[in-house]
Amino acid sequence: MEKVEIVLNSLPMSGGDGPNSYSKNSHLQRRSASLLKETIDKLITEKLDAKNLICDSNTFCIADLGCATGPNTFFLVQDIIKSVETTLDSNSTKAEFLVFFNDLTNNDFNTLFTSLPQDRSYFAVGVPGSFYGRVLPQSSVHIVVTLAATHWLSSVPKELLDKSSKAWNKGKVHYSNAAEEVVKAYEDQFGRDMEKFLEARAQEIVSGGLLVVGMCGIPQGMPFSNLADSIMYTSMADVLIQMQSQGLISEEQVDSFNIPIYSASPEEVAALVEKNGCFSVESMELIDPTAWLKRPMDVEDVRQWMVCIKATMGSLFINHFGDHLLDDIFDRLTARLVGLTDEVESSYREKVMLFFALKRI
Amino acid sequence: MEKVEIVLNSLPMSGGDGPNSYSKNSHLQRRSASLLKETIDKLITEKLDAKNLICDSNTFCIADLGCATGPNTFFLVQDIIKSVETTLDSNSTKAEFLVFFNDLTNNDFNTLFTSLPQDRSYFAVGVPGSFYGRVLPQSSVHIVVTLAATHWLSSVPKELLDKSSKAWNKGKVHYSNAAEEVVKAYEDQFGRDMEKFLEARAQEIVSGGLLVVGMCGIPQGMPFSNLADSIMYTSMADVLIQMQSQGLISEEQVDSFNIPIYSASPEEVAALVEKNGCFSVESMELIDPTAWLKRPMDVEDVRQWMVCIKATMGSLFINHFGDHLLDDIFDRLTARLVGLTDEVESSYREKVMLFFALKRI
Repeated sequence: MEKVEIVLNSLPMSGGDGPNSYSKNSHLQRRSASLLKETIDKLITEKLDAKNLICDSNTFCIADLGCATGPNTFFLVQDIIKSVETTLDSNSTKAEFLVFFNDLTNNDFNTLFTSLPQDRSYFAVGVPGSFYGRVLPQSSVHIVVTLAATHWLSSVPKELLDKSSKAWNKGKVHYSNAAEEVVKAYEDQFGRDMEKFLEARAQEIVSGGLLVVGMCGIPQGMPFSNLADSIMYTSMADVLIQMQSQGLISEEQVDSFNIPIYSASPEEVAALVEKNGCFSVESMELIDPTAWLKRPMDVEDVRQWMVCIKATMGSLFINHFGDHLLDDIFDRLTARLVGLTDEVESSYREKVMLFFALKRI
Repeated sequence: MEKVEIVLNSLPMSGGDGPNSYSKNSHLQRRSASLLKETIDKLITEKLDAKNLICDSNTFCIADLGCATGPNTFFLVQDIIKSVETTLDSNSTKAEFLVFFNDLTNNDFNTLFTSLPQDRSYFAVGVPGSFYGRVLPQSSVHIVVTLAATHWLSSVPKELLDKSSKAWNKGKVHYSNAAEEVVKAYEDQFGRDMEKFLEARAQEIVSGGLLVVGMCGIPQGMPFSNLADSIMYTSMADVLIQMQSQGLISEEQVDSFNIPIYSASPEEVAALVEKNGCFSVESMELIDPTAWLKRPMDVEDVRQWMVCIKATMGSLFINHFGDHLLDDIFDRLTARLVGLTDEVESSYREKVMLFFALKRI
């Protein structure tokens, strides 16, 4: 179990605000999130009875789970507050907003706090802890939003860490193109994690409140190998095997390294929501996260993509291979993927963002 | 005003958990706080109707303002929760606890979060911001506690930064033994700060909730020069003047350096509470913060005292004189005070902790 714990702790985005930091390299996430702005606004104005929800306390509470270090979370929260404000009666006492910014305990909250907008119109608090458990008191929040976070599993499925198991993922870093047992282990882990996620949120969100999620998705039945991300994961494995052959890392290091990210289909999530029983589905759709890109992907796009991936997954590599190899790994990976730009461009990358909104019954 | 801003930002306790950190060097504060344990327990069990306060939400909310990086705040919060739990009906649904840990935005919240007790029985959130303004929504908290924090002024009184003013505090670092104008400037600053503090808390604390404060105090009418702390402040000035004569720092640096800490009398605070009008006084007393020391103070006690002072005030010196001089300043100060152990021992240090508890009407 020790290994599982370690992986869980290695998940936070790169801290600080330096050249490799998440705060400086999360513009692709922001572009994808901006695609959801109108959808979220529509949801809030049409599906949320904000006025009645806050009637007692006059404080409206929002949580962003997996907020990282900003600044994307600040734009998101500001948009949500604007939407909620339009639904509140302008004649009543002005509501106050409390925003819970949640991420893993070892997230860089210092950077998050010092970069909070000076002119913000809400009270900001940081909430350390994994969202696969409870992080907030019962019925304490009106809207929970989480973008680009719930595709991160709580840990690498433990079967993948057992050398004698059929799920030992030799020479691969992901379930794409992997053995059936590996795919199944990822799938089961996601199922267990999402169950815990929904159970915790069911307790935290007030009746009538919303849970809004954007994460990696995939059309039901489509093999992961069709996706552009599959080329990335295959290239990662290729780079690691190359470095192994050069004696920079060991075979066991390569074989035991797996990226705990899972892409879910709408049908899969809908079944888990139904099993949970505490939410109604208000929206469930697959979106193109690169809809803002109005032209074919070029070499520079691939480079930018890798900069964001490095800021997002960097600590996972550092934890497993050491700080000293991070740049080398990503330089090789970027070079390799740049050479595969045409393949990336022509691979499936349309409906690979799953967006869903649930209402607490 | 720029100077004032800078001082305000230099106030947090030393971060991290290294040898000079607050988290490793706040045992004296803990001993003083432990003297209040029974008093706070008695207050909660006798003056707080916890059961009725949380009837709607079943969540009891506690805030520690000026919590620094721990661990003292964790002991304090745990004791408060225990006291509240005994007052709640054991037959009713188990209440949940939410604890707001507040300190300045540049406090080291990362250290605070990673050192949170693993087995804690409460939800923990961090709240960045100065408690001289609002940090929480209206009526959001049942008990607010703040120990060893409200004697820190929001900034050095601005008169002290004006070279042409009579409050220009030449060759001194505090209002002890200083010109009448300096004393007045500190007193006025404290009055303004405490007014803002009470106004903010009056909005944040629910009706029937408690505000519990421990801070530097002094019997009304006693000159500050009687106190042991006065010897420390005089020694600080002596050390700085010595370093100035050795060309290590400039005259202006010495004259413009002031420690923004104020010791209030019970009568002074009572008048401010009455002026505010939102609280009843449940307790107002002066306590001996070294009551745990059952023997005369010796050289090692003085050394330990300086270790704690360095962790508490270090960043103030770093901000003004630079990182490179901190150790030198405190080595000289400790040597000087060790030589004055008898004077420190015989000076007044009995009733110099002001404790008060207010109830929100």
